Amino acid sequence: MADIKKIFDNPQSGEITVSGWIRTLRKSKGICFIALTDGSTSDNIQIVAIEEQTRDYDRLTSLLTGAAITVRGNLELTPEAKQPFEIKLSEYTVLGDCPSDYPLQKKNHSPEFLRTIPHLRARSNTFGNVFRVRSEAAFAIHEFFREKGFFYVHTPIITDSDAEGAGEMFTVTTLNPCTENNANYDDDFFGKHASLTVSGQLEGEYLALALGKIYTFGPTFRAERSFTARHAAEFWMIEPEMAFADLYDDMDIAEAMLKFVLKRLLERCPKELAFFDKFYDNGLTKRLCDVSTAEFARCSYTEAINHLIAAEVDFEYKPEWGIDLQTEHERYLSETVFGKPVFVFDYPKEIKAFYMRQNDDGKTVAACDLLVPRVGELIGGSQREERLDILKARMSELEMDEAAYSRYLDTRRYGTVPHAGFGLGFERLLMYVTGISNIRDVIPFPRTAGSIY
Amino acid sequence: MADIKKIFDNPQSGEITVSGWIRTLRKSKGICFIALTDGSTSDNIQIVAIEEQTRDYDRLTSLLTGAAITVRGNLELTPEAKQPFEIKLSEYTVLGDCPSDYPLQKKNHSPEFLRTIPHLRARSNTFGNVFRVRSEAAFAIHEFFREKGFFYVHTPIITDSDAEGAGEMFTVTTLNPCTENNANYDDDFFGKHASLTVSGQLEGEYLALALGKIYTFGPTFRAERSFTARHAAEFWMIEPEMAFADLYDDMDIAEAMLKFVLKRLLERCPKELAFFDKFYDNGLTKRLCDVSTAEFARCSYTEAINHLIAAEVDFEYKPEWGIDLQTEHERYLSETVFGKPVFVFDYPKEIKAFYMRQNDDGKTVAACDLLVPRVGELIGGSQREERLDILKARMSELEMDEAAYSRYLDTRRYGTVPHAGFGLGFERLLMYVTGISNIRDVIPFPRTAGSIY
Repeated sequence: MADIKKIFDNPQSGEITVSGWIRTLRKSKGICFIALTDGSTSDNIQIVAIEEQTRDYDRLTSLLTGAAITVRGNLELTPEAKQPFEIKLSEYTVLGDCPSDYPLQKKNHSPEFLRTIPHLRARSNTFGNVFRVRSEAAFAIHEFFREKGFFYVHTPIITDSDAEGAGEMFTVTTLNPCTENNANYDDDFFGKHASLTVSGQLEGEYLALALGKIYTFGPTFRAERSFTARHAAEFWMIEPEMAFADLYDDMDIAEAMLKFVLKRLLERCPKELAFFDKFYDNGLTKRLCDVSTAEFARCSYTEAINHLIAAEVDFEYKPEWGIDLQTEHERYLSETVFGKPVFVFDYPKEIKAFYMRQNDDGKTVAACDLLVPRVGELIGGSQREERLDILKARMSELEMDEAAYSRYLDTRRYGTVPHAGFGLGFERLLMYVTGISNIRDVIPFPRTAGSIY
Repeated sequence: MADIKKIFDNPQSGEITVSGWIRTLRKSKGICFIALTDGSTSDNIQIVAIEEQTRDYDRLTSLLTGAAITVRGNLELTPEAKQPFEIKLSEYTVLGDCPSDYPLQKKNHSPEFLRTIPHLRARSNTFGNVFRVRSEAAFAIHEFFREKGFFYVHTPIITDSDAEGAGEMFTVTTLNPCTENNANYDDDFFGKHASLTVSGQLEGEYLALALGKIYTFGPTFRAERSFTARHAAEFWMIEPEMAFADLYDDMDIAEAMLKFVLKRLLERCPKELAFFDKFYDNGLTKRLCDVSTAEFARCSYTEAINHLIAAEVDFEYKPEWGIDLQTEHERYLSETVFGKPVFVFDYPKEIKAFYMRQNDDGKTVAACDLLVPRVGELIGGSQREERLDILKARMSELEMDEAAYSRYLDTRRYGTVPHAGFGLGFERLLMYVTGISNIRDVIPFPRTAGSIY
């Protein structure tokens, strides 16, 4: 039995068997047209059944949207018709009926409604396309890093550390918070408090300082009660880390990675992207195509602030040296100043994490963010502080507990080397390449504050 | 700057710059030999420094194992020597010293000791090789399924269901089990009790019944206090699911997948496998090679039990129809009866999960396990029960709460189709292909009962 995608890739006239679900079924006098999908592609295959040649014709035409059938028939090329070919049904079997209360009728449904039926929504056009793109984008990321000599590593999901202290964390426990009193983490599964990871970076550094170049691609978690369209409690991150690399190598790899993924999606998902271009984000395909060949701009934070101060724009947050850039600033820089993706680098050390490498100016660190039109920040990275004395001094300034980072410091004690890495939120990338504006709609089963659908 | 792996793949004489960590440094009169690694390969590159041609020769020769340097020099092909080429050092820079308390000296360390330094152990030969193989195996899995038209999907890590009721689960919470009394899951982050997933299968089914063929590859969790060498609290699973497929398709795909991964590893990791063959599992390479081309045997559970009963072996667990096969039985079947991997299928329904498809005999279900020599069960799969009435009757027999599975039942209400899938524990696969006998040694940062290192 052939996947419908393979048939569309290379239609051959002749006898064929296909299985799928009915998208639509349209009857005329003595003839019936069925659009059939098996999920392998966004294309439906057209099945034509002639009443007088079809056994149990009435049973066939009584089937509703969502019913599953296997069809044997003859594939005929139809170069003059709207669809390139069709299958003339010779016999069929009903695999599964679908009653009329099926929630996915052919009319359009709101994304809000579809979020309430995550077990069915991947059958809709939009979500089928999103998840096919999601799969291709993930594979492209693996292809890219492997070609560049990076090893894929699995950093732990359950952790006993607070990583970069970023955000609220979920506790992982076998204790019962609702019934036990005076429980103690000594009695917990791991014999201590454990959490869900917010980043694999620290462990990624350990592995890069052994294997040279690594990347993670795994789930990360934030227990933040954000109710925005851009935040989920569970999301997937890609975090590459390279030994013997500085901030410029880091930006080079991030730029090459993004372009590679866009090129692969343009080649491999043209129909899905055309769908999103038409229904979600006009001009999407052209924009992705432009970005995939553009040379990204690079601009220091100090220059970026000067651009923003000089801008004749009434920003909600007034730009001045030292502030964290807001989405309005990021979009202005990438959309208006540069008209393409731009790396902003060398940020004030006060607004960045302790592990970023200090520049000689004493004020900034070797951090970079990639800002892209319409989205703002897509990637954040840095060269890591590899000098033990400077790292310890910074941790002391920030009143951090050195003992909690003894392993991290070990890597600076034993053969320390310059190294750099970055983080890419996979869902943010998907929102960028599909034009879908709510993160809940690029994750098969989204988890957000107050909600596990 | 070149990766050392690329240099070994294609050594070219001439000027070159490499960076890495010193594995060994050996001095003779007026000359010094350094074995340098950058983690990209298990091969060390040989650096030769002549005292009278090297500025700061004494500094160089004072460096210890683990120190990081960048070397510029001339690559010379040495076809007569033990190593195929060497680099004649012309100048060097020290990136990071390494003091003599470095825990990884060149002598061999016990796996138990190395587990206490997970942030450094990937620098050892064994673990470097394990994690390079782990990366290639993961990529091979993605390659295989993509070539076969499967979409990679991310099923949720945080879940509000108990999936197949398999094993103890971890609670995920923002409540504090140690200080709060009378807390209530209504006040928890998701407004209800949430856990870490034990399997992505149910959600995988939802997505296969939309996209046709999918696979998951993600972390799963068991809060079981097992202290065996085969159990971890956090491990990665691969769970493919196919619509329009039966148990025989399932076995075909599982067999093709395993052979594909073995072939890729034999092609791409020959040095790593040779290392494991030599130090961990004599005959490993030949065995993997044999399995990658063998036709796997297939045998019903009933036949398997008959083989076991007829065996002149004093099993610890007496074989009789109805029992769950133990590792001793699994190994006897694959090693002695068949001498190769064997699928055992059609198991008694009492020892298998509720969702497996009932056979017409009324006694067995369409389940299959792949048993392999030396390891026992590697893969477990089944055709799923797609008939709503039979599924509901079985759930009722087992006194399951139908309401908790309303989504699962929905997929049998709306266009149900035959479908099948299986699960492969990624770490178990890695133990099989490396001969490493403890699961803690194929995971970068293992989590087990009582222990987060």
